[in-house]
Amino acid sequence: MQRGRPDLSVRSVADVGEAGLLEIVKERFGNGSDHGEVWAGDDAAVLATGERSLLTTDVLVEGIDFDLAYGSGRDVGWKSLAVNISDIAAMGGRPTRAVVTLALPPTTVLGVVDSFLDGLVEGAARWDVGIVGGDISGAAQMSVSVAMLGTVDGDPVLRAGARPGDAICVTGSLGGAAGGLFALQGGVTGSSPRIDELVGRQLRPEPRVVEGAQLKRLGATSMIDVSDGLGLDLTRLMTASGTGCAIETAMLPVDPNLGALEGGPDGVELALGGGEDLELLCTIDASRLDEAMEALAPPLAGFTRIGDVTEDGLMLDGVAMKGEELGWDHLRSR
Amino acid sequence: MQRGRPDLSVRSVADVGEAGLLEIVKERFGNGSDHGEVWAGDDAAVLATGERSLLTTDVLVEGIDFDLAYGSGRDVGWKSLAVNISDIAAMGGRPTRAVVTLALPPTTVLGVVDSFLDGLVEGAARWDVGIVGGDISGAAQMSVSVAMLGTVDGDPVLRAGARPGDAICVTGSLGGAAGGLFALQGGVTGSSPRIDELVGRQLRPEPRVVEGAQLKRLGATSMIDVSDGLGLDLTRLMTASGTGCAIETAMLPVDPNLGALEGGPDGVELALGGGEDLELLCTIDASRLDEAMEALAPPLAGFTRIGDVTEDGLMLDGVAMKGEELGWDHLRSR
Repeated sequence: MQRGRPDLSVRSVADVGEAGLLEIVKERFGNGSDHGEVWAGDDAAVLATGERSLLTTDVLVEGIDFDLAYGSGRDVGWKSLAVNISDIAAMGGRPTRAVVTLALPPTTVLGVVDSFLDGLVEGAARWDVGIVGGDISGAAQMSVSVAMLGTVDGDPVLRAGARPGDAICVTGSLGGAAGGLFALQGGVTGSSPRIDELVGRQLRPEPRVVEGAQLKRLGATSMIDVSDGLGLDLTRLMTASGTGCAIETAMLPVDPNLGALEGGPDGVELALGGGEDLELLCTIDASRLDEAMEALAPPLAGFTRIGDVTEDGLMLDGVAMKGEELGWDHLRSR
Repeated sequence: MQRGRPDLSVRSVADVGEAGLLEIVKERFGNGSDHGEVWAGDDAAVLATGERSLLTTDVLVEGIDFDLAYGSGRDVGWKSLAVNISDIAAMGGRPTRAVVTLALPPTTVLGVVDSFLDGLVEGAARWDVGIVGGDISGAAQMSVSVAMLGTVDGDPVLRAGARPGDAICVTGSLGGAAGGLFALQGGVTGSSPRIDELVGRQLRPEPRVVEGAQLKRLGATSMIDVSDGLGLDLTRLMTASGTGCAIETAMLPVDPNLGALEGGPDGVELALGGGEDLELLCTIDASRLDEAMEALAPPLAGFTRIGDVTEDGLMLDGVAMKGEELGWDHLRSR
């Protein structure tokens, strides 16, 4: 809720209607006049694009991908941009412009909408992305779809491209977002700075845009972001490349804060199966590993070799696995 | 449901999970290899774009924007593209590429998903749009968001630009989509070819891409598509242009098939307040009116002058009105 705008916390979307809501939205975003572009307010945005553009989209649904019981609208706004920016980062690209659709129950308190817009505005400023248009509809359940345009200098890094012998590496640390979800869902009592950090990784993930651009420059042969769990995303990378891999769990950069979840799930399991870390998983010629580790050292996210590309098969500590065994499936009954 | 794929009609989304569903989706769309682009299957699509791109997005939610009780998944797929293409058409542009997010209950029968994909594939072929990526999530309620890229030669036609003295014109006919909705919601008994035509305008609207390009060529000074009702969309056009208008209801091209709705709502009211016709509403120098009527004559949609741009105010048959009185608001309580 916004201080100085107390009315928004008590009035609902239905009170102001679509026209009123659009006014609230318009107030929050810039227009393209500084860029010679046309943003929101016409039938479509008019954007300056280069010869080549990146385009991706993701949808977040309340109760599935986020929960307003333990995250704010602001977190949802931030994350809805972050997951898309992560896809652009995984191509070695830079995000530029986005459009957003919001479906929400008419009973939604305007304070939640305003908080959501705060998160969008904050994320847009953080990553220099223009929110250039959108659409709103009623719904039984809140959901947000973002479509993100990006740009890339030279050739993007695709999922296909890994070669046997390449090192498999990951930025930052893994499992933190899943640990944060465990904490939010009531898995821990009390709080601590370390648990807050895990929660932050779940609610306010940081896509690795600078790291992705560095890895492109360093000749990464394939890249994907870790959004559905290392196991599943690694399988996607290897499938696209037509290669296999051998991973050592002892080498995984397990989020050090997971140790704060006393009696919680195993750190290695979270690192392998938990999604949403938005780290980058890539393959790179082993001869460039040292250079990459130096380039991605703090203040960047860090860079860890977790295994090697092989001819085929997914080996985990020497045992053959299936990627699906480790990943998250939004839709399958369980 | 697809003949020859009987299993899809009885199995649910939960039976196959996200991975299985993605396989079903991938089968249905091309890839960008023929275009030197990368479509679905990587983190983001890689697209050839010109110096200037159009970008728009729309969301359709079950129970609000469509109802599977009276429209097929195929209709939803078609319409989800059509409403976005209409936005591109209203800039005088041509649609090129789209991304789609689909949220749906895991209990959804795969036949519905397959039918939805049929509609997407059919619409993509009809308008030569590549579906280059997407995302799927679970939800309590089905919803579809499409983001559409387009291109435009020269300057797009914006909403701002109408000048006092310009003729206000509309393509095709108005009110048919609202009449079709009335019929679908049980407002008529029995069926007839004329009622089927109204239903077609509701479920399978035809965006006016060729007409939009012609109107741009002819120097239309402002343009918008009629998606929320003539009253509301006209108000938007006039507000953006800083002008007013005088409309004569006797000049409105009321859909002739509305006469088949015996005892139904008044045709002029539907033409003014019903949305979703996806006709183009524009302003044009009065000296070019004859030329435009000739250029848009059948087999194109036709072109009718409905009034004139004035200095300010919205006059309907000489009476001052508010645009909001005539339009559709998705969210306001009523």
